[in-house]
Amino acid sequence: MPRPRNRGEALEIDQSGPLASAPPRPPEDWPAENLAAQYDAIRHVTEALCEPLAIEDYVVQSMPDASPVKWHLAHTAWFFETFVLARYLPGYQPFHPLFGFLFNSYYEAAGPRWSRPQRGLLSRPTVAEVYRYRAHVDRHMDELFGPHHAAELRRAASTVILGLHHEQQHQELILTDLKHAWSANPMHPVYKEALADDSSLPATRRAFFPEGLVLIGHDGDGFGFDNEFPRHRVFLKEFELATGLVTNAQYLAFMADGGYRRPELWLSDGWAVVQARNWDAPLYWEQDGEQWFAITLSGRRPLVAGQPVCHVSYYEADAFARWAGARLPSEAEWETAAAIGTLAGNFLDSGRFHPACSPSADDRGPCHQMYGDVWQWTASPYVGYPGYQPPRGALGEYNGKFMCNQFVLRGASCVTPRSHARRTYRNFFPADARWQFTGLRLAYDPK
Amino acid sequence: MPRPRNRGEALEIDQSGPLASAPPRPPEDWPAENLAAQYDAIRHVTEALCEPLAIEDYVVQSMPDASPVKWHLAHTAWFFETFVLARYLPGYQPFHPLFGFLFNSYYEAAGPRWSRPQRGLLSRPTVAEVYRYRAHVDRHMDELFGPHHAAELRRAASTVILGLHHEQQHQELILTDLKHAWSANPMHPVYKEALADDSSLPATRRAFFPEGLVLIGHDGDGFGFDNEFPRHRVFLKEFELATGLVTNAQYLAFMADGGYRRPELWLSDGWAVVQARNWDAPLYWEQDGEQWFAITLSGRRPLVAGQPVCHVSYYEADAFARWAGARLPSEAEWETAAAIGTLAGNFLDSGRFHPACSPSADDRGPCHQMYGDVWQWTASPYVGYPGYQPPRGALGEYNGKFMCNQFVLRGASCVTPRSHARRTYRNFFPADARWQFTGLRLAYDPK
Amino acid sequence: MPRPRNRGEALEIDQSGPLASAPPRPPEDWPAENLAAQYDAIRHVTEALCEPLAIEDYVVQSMPDASPVKWHLAHTAWFFETFVLARYLPGYQPFHPLFGFLFNSYYEAAGPRWSRPQRGLLSRPTVAEVYRYRAHVDRHMDELFGPHHAAELRRAASTVILGLHHEQQHQELILTDLKHAWSANPMHPVYKEALADDSSLPATRRAFFPEGLVLIGHDGDGFGFDNEFPRHRVFLKEFELATGLVTNAQYLAFMADGGYRRPELWLSDGWAVVQARNWDAPLYWEQDGEQWFAITLSGRRPLVAGQPVCHVSYYEADAFARWAGARLPSEAEWETAAAIGTLAGNFLDSGRFHPACSPSADDRGPCHQMYGDVWQWTASPYVGYPGYQPPRGALGEYNGKFMCNQFVLRGASCVTPRSHARRTYRNFFPADARWQFTGLRLAYDPK
Amino acid sequence: MPRPRNRGEALEIDQSGPLASAPPRPPEDWPAENLAAQYDAIRHVTEALCEPLAIEDYVVQSMPDASPVKWHLAHTAWFFETFVLARYLPGYQPFHPLFGFLFNSYYEAAGPRWSRPQRGLLSRPTVAEVYRYRAHVDRHMDELFGPHHAAELRRAASTVILGLHHEQQHQELILTDLKHAWSANPMHPVYKEALADDSSLPATRRAFFPEGLVLIGHDGDGFGFDNEFPRHRVFLKEFELATGLVTNAQYLAFMADGGYRRPELWLSDGWAVVQARNWDAPLYWEQDGEQWFAITLSGRRPLVAGQPVCHVSYYEADAFARWAGARLPSEAEWETAAAIGTLAGNFLDSGRFHPACSPSADDRGPCHQMYGDVWQWTASPYVGYPGYQPPRGALGEYNGKFMCNQFVLRGASCVTPRSHARRTYRNFFPADARWQFTGLRLAYDPK
Repeated sequence: MPRPRNRGEALEIDQSGPLASAPPRPPEDWPAENLAAQYDAIRHVTEALCEPLAIEDYVVQSMPDASPVKWHLAHTAWFFETFVLARYLPGYQPFHPLFGFLFNSYYEAAGPRWSRPQRGLLSRPTVAEVYRYRAHVDRHMDELFGPHHAAELRRAASTVILGLHHEQQHQELILTDLKHAWSANPMHPVYKEALADDSSLPATRRAFFPEGLVLIGHDGDGFGFDNEFPRHRVFLKEFELATGLVTNAQYLAFMADGGYRRPELWLSDGWAVVQARNWDAPLYWEQDGEQWFAITLSGRRPLVAGQPVCHVSYYEADAFARWAGARLPSEAEWETAAAIGTLAGNFLDSGRFHPACSPSADDRGPCHQMYGDVWQWTASPYVGYPGYQPPRGALGEYNGKFMCNQFVLRGASCVTPRSHARRTYRNFFPADARWQFTGLRLAYDPK
Repeated sequence: MPRPRNRGEALEIDQSGPLASAPPRPPEDWPAENLAAQYDAIRHVTEALCEPLAIEDYVVQSMPDASPVKWHLAHTAWFFETFVLARYLPGYQPFHPLFGFLFNSYYEAAGPRWSRPQRGLLSRPTVAEVYRYRAHVDRHMDELFGPHHAAELRRAASTVILGLHHEQQHQELILTDLKHAWSANPMHPVYKEALADDSSLPATRRAFFPEGLVLIGHDGDGFGFDNEFPRHRVFLKEFELATGLVTNAQYLAFMADGGYRRPELWLSDGWAVVQARNWDAPLYWEQDGEQWFAITLSGRRPLVAGQPVCHVSYYEADAFARWAGARLPSEAEWETAAAIGTLAGNFLDSGRFHPACSPSADDRGPCHQMYGDVWQWTASPYVGYPGYQPPRGALGEYNGKFMCNQFVLRGASCVTPRSHARRTYRNFFPADARWQFTGLRLAYDPK
Repeated sequence: MPRPRNRGEALEIDQSGPLASAPPRPPEDWPAENLAAQYDAIRHVTEALCEPLAIEDYVVQSMPDASPVKWHLAHTAWFFETFVLARYLPGYQPFHPLFGFLFNSYYEAAGPRWSRPQRGLLSRPTVAEVYRYRAHVDRHMDELFGPHHAAELRRAASTVILGLHHEQQHQELILTDLKHAWSANPMHPVYKEALADDSSLPATRRAFFPEGLVLIGHDGDGFGFDNEFPRHRVFLKEFELATGLVTNAQYLAFMADGGYRRPELWLSDGWAVVQARNWDAPLYWEQDGEQWFAITLSGRRPLVAGQPVCHVSYYEADAFARWAGARLPSEAEWETAAAIGTLAGNFLDSGRFHPACSPSADDRGPCHQMYGDVWQWTASPYVGYPGYQPPRGALGEYNGKFMCNQFVLRGASCVTPRSHARRTYRNFFPADARWQFTGLRLAYDPK
Repeated sequence: MPRPRNRGEALEIDQSGPLASAPPRPPEDWPAENLAAQYDAIRHVTEALCEPLAIEDYVVQSMPDASPVKWHLAHTAWFFETFVLARYLPGYQPFHPLFGFLFNSYYEAAGPRWSRPQRGLLSRPTVAEVYRYRAHVDRHMDELFGPHHAAELRRAASTVILGLHHEQQHQELILTDLKHAWSANPMHPVYKEALADDSSLPATRRAFFPEGLVLIGHDGDGFGFDNEFPRHRVFLKEFELATGLVTNAQYLAFMADGGYRRPELWLSDGWAVVQARNWDAPLYWEQDGEQWFAITLSGRRPLVAGQPVCHVSYYEADAFARWAGARLPSEAEWETAAAIGTLAGNFLDSGRFHPACSPSADDRGPCHQMYGDVWQWTASPYVGYPGYQPPRGALGEYNGKFMCNQFVLRGASCVTPRSHARRTYRNFFPADARWQFTGLRLAYDPK
């Protein structure tokens, strides 16, 4: 099925290129014989994404929250080395004694680590050495996938799968951080030429959802991160959801109406950020005379009115919604809407749906643009679900320790690997983060 | 009914003194004829709280988040002047043209304001002038309460009541901020001598609560802040709650077990704060040889093992709970426990309670120390209830615009005016705040 | 002899009031019998300066570099207690065990001390206690001055004299820091009503000075700080010095000519400060329509064109001079000009003077406004004279350890005690300091 | 004549390699026909210095004060493009419209510029593009040197010569900044293997210099920067100078004697820096058990006792001198000592020299290690000489605008191109700078 063409910023990344070679969503029981193929495919995508880069592009770090491409490449190798090879492949020797220190991201249990804001200070190891590191890890993973280590692989399998999803997260981050690094460069490098925007989307309307107890969270069928569990009941009041995303044109109207100058539209923290950082438009937007431009991975380009607004913070999404007489959806509301048509029985009382949201297949659900354009801010602070338990050991730091001062984003963006997106996925960022591909969808209280 | 003697820090404030003269919880329909008396009583308490102070104590500001006592005195007068007198008393003239600028706290709609971190820079107006300001406002409020302004008072009544609750909030803040200012002073000023600690509390055990839909939020009977509305349904899984608060002795055990040195116990943000600020004990604790002391409003005193731990941040509360194999309760869980025995019908399905938590009267409920010792951190980020709407106009800034990056605290502390506490009250502070009188109660997932 | 009336900011302080009661410049051999009288007079001036203040005015600290008035009062008592009484008066007991910690300014050798930027956090000791502290010290100084301690006094005498000059420095700082604290206060407190400005000054012209070896530094006749020694030879090229100070009118012309917007006029560091702090006028200047005002100790007043510009940093003085086609004088040039007419033999070869600068008595020298208006920035970085040696012990920290990253100012301001000014006095502040009463005089290279 | 082998850090850079190909000190009248050869030689050295680098090494910026190697390469090309080609070569077209913005260092008059602390954020232009930029500039410089532009070259010649000296300054900075960038890298890259240290130096003693008027500053024979002019008279008291530099062994004795823990040894600003940055040894020193190591351009190597201490700040040099009962020399003293034996008539009264410092040829002067080991901190703040005038136009920003808050260093370091060193050279850095190759020589007041 062809993906809709209208994605954020005029098809920043043609995912039918490198990302399309990523594996489809792993089946419930990842057969061991498939794991090697999945591994090869996903690891290959990561390197294919870097093909347009010069050596210099791998090195720079444009802010503490972003990382150099070189670091992403090495860190994802480190993940397999540390959590898979060192634990499960007998006799494995680390590639370099310092790499465990240099490429640990934030795992306290995995020992000390190089300071995050200083990742851009390291000219060595060189890019070539990092690729050798990856090759070294890949060779040993091959060995683990081989006939002599079936028992080890069985024990390692769930961590290997986690490592692949982790690698996919960093595929998105490579492009996200590269875009940020390049955005500061007046030479406006181009990652890939933009495609023509031949999309036509249905007009946005409101889909109605009745009140009731819903089941939220991963059902255990296929891979899910720890924070998607446990599946649990939530009581929802009736609500409405916009069928499409907020567009650049709508956001320009908010700006023209003084959106960035009216404190009554903003959370107190948000207003403080607007003033301290002199925000007056989404990240990467620049005005030239009357025309607005956006820095994209295809260079600096005129803003397209009908495309989803992107690179807005939670504060901006929240202020826009207030201005529009709406609000942001909760993550339970978003997930409920996403479930319609794809998962029978999601609603405990499914008999009461409004005709407008009768269950239908994926892209024929009540709402569109759920995945593949922009991550969508929800009104839900990122906390554990009732009964949430992090995994034991170092991997317990994967999601649980960030459950504070962040907001949940749902959906998936135009740089998310397609096989990485799912209905129960909980992305999360602080309220002031804008360098991710983030936009919004409006929700309403009926009446 | 005598209040239990065991409150945080050995009866920091004897509330049977000045605070006891505060009115009981206002009845549902605050009769207009009572309003003047309520106003006089509450305003008097504010000034009585300042009796032990020297002029110099009114002036200092020890950190951006705290305010000088003088500012609190003036700001609470400003509230009545701005939102009541200027709007409802015909011909009212502000006391001083600059005071609207100097004593606005954060109301964007009320115009520009003096920078909060610089409140301690103002030697003028003097304390005497601030008391004259209060007297001026009180005189005109008397006029509004008088026979010639019945219609105006009727329209103003709800704002007057809000102003009184606002004044009570600042009564607590006066003592809280004074404590912080004095804590930095090596001369250890004493606000009031400590009472003997003759308390004996029942041993803490776990009270069980079954799963079910509960009603959360204010029922409209009596005053409630906007953020306590609307009352709404929440589905709770079964849970257990400690009947008492975490004590100093328990917290010392956490510290002795390396609590402040084990990153696996902490949220990522919390661990960063622990390291950046060199936290190794609650705020105001000092070790001298083997003995721990705490700075209190009665000076520097040896820590009392059985009293509730106080002046811990959300991060510390969360880490302690994790160390204890427990968690913090959600605010819905806390409110549900608080409701038992005092509000029939709080549970939609009240027939299924465990015998241990059979409904009972206030202090005979399943849990004790719910009010009057320390505010209790919950695991709930502070957001609006489903369908929440802030009031119109400037007063809409009262609670709504802070719904971001804060956590809800429930209960009431030893410096909260008694008539100010209630079951549905939602206090809130950022996760790193420690200067409030904040402690915790543990929750558990059964099994 | 009446002092000229035209001093900075329209007679900010009428020195013929309290300051006039200060002693004349101490004779070479301060007779012991006079010391008590000098002590009483100078200590009295300090307290007389505080008469117009409210208690609140003693407490605030408006920036790290400034101190609360209360602190100045206590610190000057601490100086006598620590360096005189504790060392020379047998059996002396410190007034309070904590005051040594609280009121040490910067003497490392005198033990740990309260953090300077936090001086404004201390509400206690109260102002009344500080006055009691001063009285306690004064009583014991009286004892030292008495008949039973002649030997001790003889040994202590030079430190007592140093303490009196130290006290005079803090008299100036009390008014300087108070002005800064009040300047931030929109209520514009008034220390003293301004006098009428009935001055008429001679027009400013250039006085010529020939090249030659000059003697610079204190000649040992009377008191001098360590940094005024040793007297030494300096070779000066011929130079010219403006006979008067740069005026507000001249400075306004600089501003009107884009002075604050033209980087070519500024030192690199200065330009960075201008941009970072958005400087566009001297400190305390405010524009209201076409009219400029200055905050003064007499409140907010219209700028007087003919008065000396005040509250400019070294950077601004330097930029103004460059704009004017001139430069700042070196301290040796300033001192040479000041010496003419008052100290025979200052010049090694005094026969070659231009008629314009024939030696004359004090105010009839070639230049006027040398003392009593504003401190005058020189182009000389503050370093030790050749062969400079600091005193032994803690008092060695008095001047020597600051010989880095500061510039010398010469003369004396309108808030300098008259008896404190002298030709060889070396005041010093960092290049960005503006809260002192600082202005400038131009120098020129002939031809 | 062979250079002494004992240079800072065991011959960090073998200057008889690439640097030796730099031209000897340009004669007074740089014949036009030589200029092209000089240009080629010096420009070639710059690129030869980069041969050991990986692409990644050109990109990183390890602190705001340091720059990426790539930036140095481009900036030195920009200098010739902007100040020579654009002004003097008819029809010259800039290589790229953005490079004027990206590679301007600090010339306000040359227009806006890319923020200095963000030089490391630019992955583009790539290193290859920067080399193309240099080649482009070189090609056009060749054209200017050619037969058709004799008149233009004549007018441009002094700027070309300035550009070559500027290029040599950046040759030193390339190695200095690279060392800093690599010092933070735990992989310890090696620029060049160290040579054996076969040096033997004469013991250090004190050379005596009598008092008198001396001539300081450039005499106009050959190239000199603006800040070396005008030559002028200075009166010096008699002084003594150590004949050799302070060694690592001496500095270790200072450390062992509590040098970094004794405030009485430090300037006040210096002590604040010691505490704020936790200094306890020179930059790049690391202790491993009993052994001290230094990070060098030859990797991490054991400290050599007899070599000059390097990478100390002015604060450390000053504290060491105070500890040693000595002081730092003034720049006039240093220059006077350097002049002996090489410049007849430097002293106005040369008949009175102590036998110990009888005039002799360069390395046979009274002092050794004057050039080629480390830059030597002097006690002289960096200000203009009497009568100093900066050049007109943008190049007036070269030295004059930094005359504030810096100290003069004299001599030359082991990474200074040999032809770049001279007796009157005034290097300058802030008192806390340590990443330059900086050490010290002691001075004494006789008796």
